[in-house]
Amino acid sequence: MGLKPNSALKASKTLFVLLSLFTFLLVGSQGENTAMDNVATERRAEESHRQDSANLLIFIMLLTLTILTIWLFKHRRFRFLHETGLAMIYGLLVGVILRFGVHVPRNMNNVTMNCSVNASPATLLVNVSGRFYEYTLKGEVSTVKGHDVQDDEMLRKVTFDPEVFFNILLPPIIFHAGYSLKRRHFFRNLGSILAYAFMGTVISSFVIGLVMYGCVTLMKAVGQLGGDFFFTDCLFFGAIVSATDPVTVLAIFNELKVDVDLYALMFGESVLNDAVAIVLSSSIGAYQPAGDNSHTFDATAMIKSFGVFLGVFSGSLALGVATGVMTALVTKFTKLRDFPLLETALFFLMSWSTFLLAEACEMTGVVAVLFCGMTQAHYTFNNLSPDSQDRTKQLFELLNFLAENFIFSYMGLTLFSFQSHVFNPLFIIGAFIAVFLGRAANIYPLSFLLNLGRKNKIGSNFQHVMMFAGLRGAMTFALSIRDTATYARQMMFSTTLLIVFFTVWVCGGGTTPMLSFMSIRVGVDSDQDSSVIVSDGTQHRNTKHESAWPFRIWYNFDNTYLKPLLTHSGPPLTATLPACCGPLARCLTSTQAYENEGHQHNDDSDELVLNDGNATMYGDVTVSTDASGTRTTNHKHLSASTMGITSEEALDQELAFGEHELVIRGTRLVLPMDDPPEPTVTLPPPPTSPPPFSDPFSDPFSDPFSDPRRNKL
Amino acid sequence: MGLKPNSALKASKTLFVLLSLFTFLLVGSQGENTAMDNVATERRAEESHRQDSANLLIFIMLLTLTILTIWLFKHRRFRFLHETGLAMIYGLLVGVILRFGVHVPRNMNNVTMNCSVNASPATLLVNVSGRFYEYTLKGEVSTVKGHDVQDDEMLRKVTFDPEVFFNILLPPIIFHAGYSLKRRHFFRNLGSILAYAFMGTVISSFVIGLVMYGCVTLMKAVGQLGGDFFFTDCLFFGAIVSATDPVTVLAIFNELKVDVDLYALMFGESVLNDAVAIVLSSSIGAYQPAGDNSHTFDATAMIKSFGVFLGVFSGSLALGVATGVMTALVTKFTKLRDFPLLETALFFLMSWSTFLLAEACEMTGVVAVLFCGMTQAHYTFNNLSPDSQDRTKQLFELLNFLAENFIFSYMGLTLFSFQSHVFNPLFIIGAFIAVFLGRAANIYPLSFLLNLGRKNKIGSNFQHVMMFAGLRGAMTFALSIRDTATYARQMMFSTTLLIVFFTVWVCGGGTTPMLSFMSIRVGVDSDQDSSVIVSDGTQHRNTKHESAWPFRIWYNFDNTYLKPLLTHSGPPLTATLPACCGPLARCLTSTQAYENEGHQHNDDSDELVLNDGNATMYGDVTVSTDASGTRTTNHKHLSASTMGITSEEALDQELAFGEHELVIRGTRLVLPMDDPPEPTVTLPPPPTSPPPFSDPFSDPFSDPFSDPRRNKL
Repeated sequence: MGLKPNSALKASKTLFVLLSLFTFLLVGSQGENTAMDNVATERRAEESHRQDSANLLIFIMLLTLTILTIWLFKHRRFRFLHETGLAMIYGLLVGVILRFGVHVPRNMNNVTMNCSVNASPATLLVNVSGRFYEYTLKGEVSTVKGHDVQDDEMLRKVTFDPEVFFNILLPPIIFHAGYSLKRRHFFRNLGSILAYAFMGTVISSFVIGLVMYGCVTLMKAVGQLGGDFFFTDCLFFGAIVSATDPVTVLAIFNELKVDVDLYALMFGESVLNDAVAIVLSSSIGAYQPAGDNSHTFDATAMIKSFGVFLGVFSGSLALGVATGVMTALVTKFTKLRDFPLLETALFFLMSWSTFLLAEACEMTGVVAVLFCGMTQAHYTFNNLSPDSQDRTKQLFELLNFLAENFIFSYMGLTLFSFQSHVFNPLFIIGAFIAVFLGRAANIYPLSFLLNLGRKNKIGSNFQHVMMFAGLRGAMTFALSIRDTATYARQMMFSTTLLIVFFTVWVCGGGTTPMLSFMSIRVGVDSDQDSSVIVSDGTQHRNTKHESAWPFRIWYNFDNTYLKPLLTHSGPPLTATLPACCGPLARCLTSTQAYENEGHQHNDDSDELVLNDGNATMYGDVTVSTDASGTRTTNHKHLSASTMGITSEEALDQELAFGEHELVIRGTRLVLPMDDPPEPTVTLPPPPTSPPPFSDPFSDPFSDPFSDPRRNKL
Repeated sequence: MGLKPNSALKASKTLFVLLSLFTFLLVGSQGENTAMDNVATERRAEESHRQDSANLLIFIMLLTLTILTIWLFKHRRFRFLHETGLAMIYGLLVGVILRFGVHVPRNMNNVTMNCSVNASPATLLVNVSGRFYEYTLKGEVSTVKGHDVQDDEMLRKVTFDPEVFFNILLPPIIFHAGYSLKRRHFFRNLGSILAYAFMGTVISSFVIGLVMYGCVTLMKAVGQLGGDFFFTDCLFFGAIVSATDPVTVLAIFNELKVDVDLYALMFGESVLNDAVAIVLSSSIGAYQPAGDNSHTFDATAMIKSFGVFLGVFSGSLALGVATGVMTALVTKFTKLRDFPLLETALFFLMSWSTFLLAEACEMTGVVAVLFCGMTQAHYTFNNLSPDSQDRTKQLFELLNFLAENFIFSYMGLTLFSFQSHVFNPLFIIGAFIAVFLGRAANIYPLSFLLNLGRKNKIGSNFQHVMMFAGLRGAMTFALSIRDTATYARQMMFSTTLLIVFFTVWVCGGGTTPMLSFMSIRVGVDSDQDSSVIVSDGTQHRNTKHESAWPFRIWYNFDNTYLKPLLTHSGPPLTATLPACCGPLARCLTSTQAYENEGHQHNDDSDELVLNDGNATMYGDVTVSTDASGTRTTNHKHLSASTMGITSEEALDQELAFGEHELVIRGTRLVLPMDDPPEPTVTLPPPPTSPPPFSDPFSDPFSDPFSDPRRNKL
């Protein structure tokens, strides 16, 4: 929409007035908190509640401000500071105000008692003149230093329980990441993504851990170390700062419509390495109390940690997938789709229960939620009514947006409100170097190795961008704030905070110039990718080799058994399962499956295996631009024509297509239409319209977020 | 959608399997909790977190089960048990399992210390061998009775902090009630609604309070009273059980499309009396500690309470309206509508901040949120982009649904999991009688008085239904669980729980039979109400007298100044404000206002004043059923034709219409088209298509939930 200059001026004025008003409200509501000092418990509880409300209000106002400023930035097309960076700046400002502007002394009602207990129980029953009061453990308080700051009630109150991040804020972000994954591009680059995410993160953790160990040894030598810092602490630090953030950079990538492969690599890596980092850090934590915390490297403990890592990761993965599958089954076999509200609620609850179930089983909820999101997007999404598809998308989009901005503004706030910062210049410099080296040791060697196997090489410009754009964000912060009890952890936390600030502001802000400097393609419509490239005839890239045999086997299994079982699409199970399972197959196949069998099958085939192949073969067939009604008719025709084939034949056909395609790969030939792909199989000729590769037609299996994630924002 | 018998059977089988599976998971995850008893603090915190997850999981599973069963009920058109009743039953079942099936003894790590402190501070610093641990006060523990039950860690853990209800679960419910209010029918019956909600609730509170006081005196006489129970306690009880619940009955009303006036009366009353009850109970609470808690009636304290009531109520109302107005201004003057996600997030945050702001200012957040919701629906909703309108509707619908069902299943759970129940048969019988009498004293005398003034009498069948369908629900529960410290409060809580169960199951379930027994009209389309009635020509009811002069003045003020100021509609402020305010008016009027001035104005006019009048006059003009594009063209024409009139003239016209209409009220005449309403005003003839009364066309000012609330569910 066109913007008139005076309306922009008016808008910025409005914003300013709102800003001042918010600041006023903020300070006003804090000032009132000082007023009371009543002894009655009820009154005190009321006061505490009031203060809690005021504190939460601060964050709501921060978010509101952030939203308005984001709007202004978008309005003016100002791109160098992303909303997350902005949220951090506002958080910083409020942190400064709270720290230096308002001083609310702590109510002097915490009595220090010296009792003869030698444990710190989780609950404490205190007998006060005959009445019992229950107290719950909040944590250890460091009384050694900074007791003057510790007294500030406001600062203390504004600090959230770190568990809030893990239990409330991270799950929607991670779920949304899984749910909005562009599966087509993701699967095309799956091998490379897995390599970066698993091997890369482990390499990065160890490199950072080793560099930090050197740094800590140096610090100890020059007497700069104020407490214990063990080798496992170094590794832990390596694990938490190895998690790159999928938020900031990818929002920019999305806006600029950057090259889809680069996007898929970055997104896949940063989503999965969050999961890897969280499990890695917890398995290092699990290894720590058992070992002797010595400075030496222990191989058996290392293997044990690795076992824990594998167990927890695969367990969480299985759990997430299981809940996703269960949701798919429930949505398939009930007629919930008649009631979108119920359906959305069920979807939301089942996805949330994944997280809780994993946590209750001592798995990692965040990892479970990620894979649950991917399963939901792959199966359940197709069972939902169109209304629910919209609702769930929008709901998780909103939750993700709010949680993200909350975390980033809280980060900004923490720099001043957190009361046990340990800023050690040597450690900080060492950490920055270590993070740089760790990222480099992840990207460059792995890219070199991957390029040996990839036909579609990861260019050096891609590598530089991946190196540069490895921001640290929400996950790193959440992992580092989870435990700030010891000196080592406090120093890690403070340093991590600085790393996050630096990467979000400097690397995040510099991504756009970096992209143009590295001459990366922008303005690519990810969904029209293949056809666009084919039509200009010059840039056709072969990524087919990524669809190697393990993936092809998986794809066929998924398409023949899982999708028919879990969704309404695909060939009916009655056709694919052996005859002995007849009654079961009939019971599990929905009526829709019989109707749209061929259609779904063909539509879906482009997703993984036949992707580029078909584009090459039918590249000169133009997509018919009739009204949607006509398209459906074509589909009906298509499904009718392929109805007679058994799934084995279809499988053969596909594998044949694949083989055929591999043969002609190097020549980049556009096959003439009268050349049937595999003459021995008696198939109807491939339909001329619509061609199977065209994404706009694959509605039932299109990505839930097929339009770029942030585009509508 | 037609249902095949075998698919229903399959569905119910699936449900059963899921049910068993959930039960298994539930019990399984609890069983594991017993395993560990580690002394390390970290391990214990982990364990506590695991248990919290498991507890929350129980509720998620309960909700999931409820959703699936609701679906089954809706599927089978089973109407006698509403979802809320169902949620309660599931809650009860889980409560029984937790109470009698699983016994998790409390970890024996809470040490009872006898220290020389004579206060119970909010925070406690405990010095354990040189290290300081911080503890926070959780509340007083009654150690006198039921210590064996108290030991059950699971039951204790499953009990939420009552503040959760007030701060997390109630606000979305109340906001949704305000946001989905059918304003047209609400305003038509505003006088009666206010009478029932304010006077009625106060009357009911006092009647119940007095009856209970008699009951308590009797109990004391026969030695059945186990503790103190003061007169203020009786009044408090009266206040909390006077809040009727808008959820259950209105869902049934909506499904059956019951008479719109009855619907409006019930909905308006139950929404507003929640607000009245919460303020009433808190002002009684405020009066309590100041007074002497004697058994006598104190007039000055009473007046003081009344003052507190008025102050808090009006303050909260003003605050809610203020935030709503601010949101309207922000959405009007920014171009946020280009970014639906930002817009939705802003809307959500601003609405939530109302609650927090009110709580931080010692007002009542729930009341503020109610009026904020009404303001948002009236003004802000019209500034939102269509996408955001959908999103906000769906978001609050979902939040409301989840919160409602959570509260009701928690209610069921509480009957067995709450550990300080006091069931006193005499008190319970007295309470049931008192609630019955209180409701009767609210409905019948007030209806009699209102009927003296109303032309459209509230029939005795309406009165009986209102009497019968006065369910007690979420608000009553939340108010009674808020404080269960004393004997009196515990007895109140247990009794309230029974009253809620009884009314939801018996009265809620009996509503459908009651409606048919009382021969209340069902199947009325609320939005087409007037036109439908006119077209059948027999049942036209005159409710115009409700639009008495105070409302007409308000309407005109709203339409001339507020709507133009806060939204893009209405006559431009440049036309309505005096000339001296010219520059300000130009600054505040959006460009859209000039464009669609006449259109909006006419569209909107049916909302309050010209409602029945126009229906009478143009009742025989059929609505054109062209495509939406044609409709828009008609609108353009309409707005162009009325563009020339100043708003004063339009005002005159409307008042004239009103007068005229009042004159013909008694005769129920359908005015012929060639009779101009007020010949002296030189107006273009009223456009023939579309007629202004038809709701489907009044998009910009239609109710956000113009389709019945639960219909799509």
